[in-house]
Amino acid sequence: MNILVVGGDGYLGWPQSMYLSKQGHDVGIIDNLTRRAWDVEGGTHSLTPIQTLHDRVTLWKKLTGCTIEAYVGDLQDYDFLVDAMTQFRPDAVVHFGEQRSAPYSMIDRKHAVRTQTNNVIGTLNLLYAIKDLCPEAHLVKLGTMGEYGTPNIDIEEGFIEINHNGRKDLLPFPKQPGSFYHLSKVHDSHNIMFACKIWGIRSTDLNQGVVYGLKTDETQLDDGLATRFDYDGVWGTVLNRYCVQAALGRPLTVYGKGGQTRGFLDIRDTLRCIEIAIQSPPAQGEYRVFNQFTEQFSVLDLANLVQQIGNRKGLNVTINHISDPRVEMEQHYYNAKHTKLLDLGLVPHDLSDVLLDSLMDVVVRHRDRVREETLMPQVNWRSTHNPSSYETAESPVAESVKAER
Amino acid sequence: MNILVVGGDGYLGWPQSMYLSKQGHDVGIIDNLTRRAWDVEGGTHSLTPIQTLHDRVTLWKKLTGCTIEAYVGDLQDYDFLVDAMTQFRPDAVVHFGEQRSAPYSMIDRKHAVRTQTNNVIGTLNLLYAIKDLCPEAHLVKLGTMGEYGTPNIDIEEGFIEINHNGRKDLLPFPKQPGSFYHLSKVHDSHNIMFACKIWGIRSTDLNQGVVYGLKTDETQLDDGLATRFDYDGVWGTVLNRYCVQAALGRPLTVYGKGGQTRGFLDIRDTLRCIEIAIQSPPAQGEYRVFNQFTEQFSVLDLANLVQQIGNRKGLNVTINHISDPRVEMEQHYYNAKHTKLLDLGLVPHDLSDVLLDSLMDVVVRHRDRVREETLMPQVNWRSTHNPSSYETAESPVAESVKAER
Repeated sequence: MNILVVGGDGYLGWPQSMYLSKQGHDVGIIDNLTRRAWDVEGGTHSLTPIQTLHDRVTLWKKLTGCTIEAYVGDLQDYDFLVDAMTQFRPDAVVHFGEQRSAPYSMIDRKHAVRTQTNNVIGTLNLLYAIKDLCPEAHLVKLGTMGEYGTPNIDIEEGFIEINHNGRKDLLPFPKQPGSFYHLSKVHDSHNIMFACKIWGIRSTDLNQGVVYGLKTDETQLDDGLATRFDYDGVWGTVLNRYCVQAALGRPLTVYGKGGQTRGFLDIRDTLRCIEIAIQSPPAQGEYRVFNQFTEQFSVLDLANLVQQIGNRKGLNVTINHISDPRVEMEQHYYNAKHTKLLDLGLVPHDLSDVLLDSLMDVVVRHRDRVREETLMPQVNWRSTHNPSSYETAESPVAESVKAER
Repeated sequence: MNILVVGGDGYLGWPQSMYLSKQGHDVGIIDNLTRRAWDVEGGTHSLTPIQTLHDRVTLWKKLTGCTIEAYVGDLQDYDFLVDAMTQFRPDAVVHFGEQRSAPYSMIDRKHAVRTQTNNVIGTLNLLYAIKDLCPEAHLVKLGTMGEYGTPNIDIEEGFIEINHNGRKDLLPFPKQPGSFYHLSKVHDSHNIMFACKIWGIRSTDLNQGVVYGLKTDETQLDDGLATRFDYDGVWGTVLNRYCVQAALGRPLTVYGKGGQTRGFLDIRDTLRCIEIAIQSPPAQGEYRVFNQFTEQFSVLDLANLVQQIGNRKGLNVTINHISDPRVEMEQHYYNAKHTKLLDLGLVPHDLSDVLLDSLMDVVVRHRDRVREETLMPQVNWRSTHNPSSYETAESPVAESVKAER
């Protein structure tokens, strides 16, 4: 099958591309390399050293004999997109190509606008390109569990049957997203659902939880195939930040009370979930939603876990509650359904001591590379002008991207 | 009170501006005049002759002594927006400033992108400007009943209490918008709800039905104060198109079976609803939704009404069912609540024979101006490249707008 991975240079996009290539698919990558540029903008980086996209695909070819075609360009450049898709002729399109940080979207107006423009217009272009060039291609879109927010009822997978005044209907689950980034994903979901309805294209919208882990069969082949590890206050996930704080002997910083509960999953389960979605595509015209996570944890649960493992390794790990920079409930009901991918064959990797232990080993190995000044939250949801290292030119890093290309 | 009307040069924005000015408020208008440019682009026009914005405010001043300040510029130009708002210091902002045609948004990719960029980013900028410059100002945002689509349950006003698996919550009413334009309004609603929550600003989101009518106390003062009447397949509403078809002796074109049912209201009720919303503002941090319409009709109901009135005037009115260019249900349940504005004092003008009669008189008076070639639908929802008179340059009419300014 010809599978196009949009955002194939990112944390998940790169391992996903290798995984699908290894399964024998013809894999192409579209990426504008802007994630690397945003690192330059904000002074952040991957703790694990990572290669350029071109070096990655060259090494992959050398080690496995498999070709991954890289198309460097932007979804907002429709001529580029049409050229790439005409050349590659995808049967499935896996869409990771979005600005994916909630704090980044909340820095200030320009970053909110940049996030919503990049994500919403990029996806809109992709929908038109699929309809015009390969209407049978299956769009596998990465959404986020954060689209739902934290309602006081069970979260269903995309749709909920509502009984009201003696009548009933199966309707889109109400969304209460918590950042301009999460909002952009809700906008995407509505646009995609509509495109499926009017044009008869087909899509799986994967509302993914927070992904952890670095090791997949493919990333372990060679250090040069490693994927990124983000730990800073803008791009890092909470578990990664805790691991770095533990390794440095700094207190784990829990935002507020720490009762904020979310869905989580192992990176290997992400790879498999997307493979499952591709293997069992929806019918033409169908828009379906899977909740893609395997376990629920509160951010305090995770701090306790990291403390345990850290102390076992002889680190003296303490926990600090700091003021929550986000506007969110710090204690709430949370019960999200996630059976559809299990029904299709997913066998989850639960968050084990072994995994956490190995994750912490990676961090300890690269301890000297940590940029400690990036760990604490720099972006407060209540402010429209966050005093961060981010400068605010309209296209701050265009030159650096060009240089990298 | 200082009231800023964004989109104050449009069909509703202009009468609304005069109405509020007449009530003694200090009124300012922001408009980029792009609606006039879109007419140039598509070969459409207002059946009623209308004056330029500058001539309108000059005439208004001459006739009433009241000043309406006009700021010509675009919400996407944040520097312009900041200057205008700093100068005007609004207590309330009435936001009509969006691309408001479903068919226009469905012409092709560029028009979909233009619609969502204009509406979503424009509103995002307005939210930031309010937060930064006048955080107590009340944002009165024009949404549309079309955000809800046609669910098989009663439509509530913005929020619905959902009982599910033994728990309950009051959640945003699920949205099923039917065009890229309607989708842009759903995106706006989500962004505004979030901005109220995190920044403590306040907003009333008015999900408005289809507005009919031309006569308000203010537009009747002088022909030079008239507002626009759109009847073509892209900008016209169904009732206006029927009136023109009846006046020309052409069959009324009902899309499909004609069971498509929507909410409608008289232009005088629009003006009053917005006044009511301004007079009873929400608390800081509150986001509330009112459904702004007074009666429900199917498009076939309206055709029958126009046929009756037309025949009474000696016109020989027939009805043709043509293939529906939209993707929508042609027969469906529809029962939308609309009590909140009534509770706050709205006394509706129902759609009477007298009103329809006078509307048809206006059309007959301007019959010679009708551009008959624009009446039939040119935009089909199922196509991504609609063969219309619309050309597809990225900014087709920038030059014409500049010339007009």
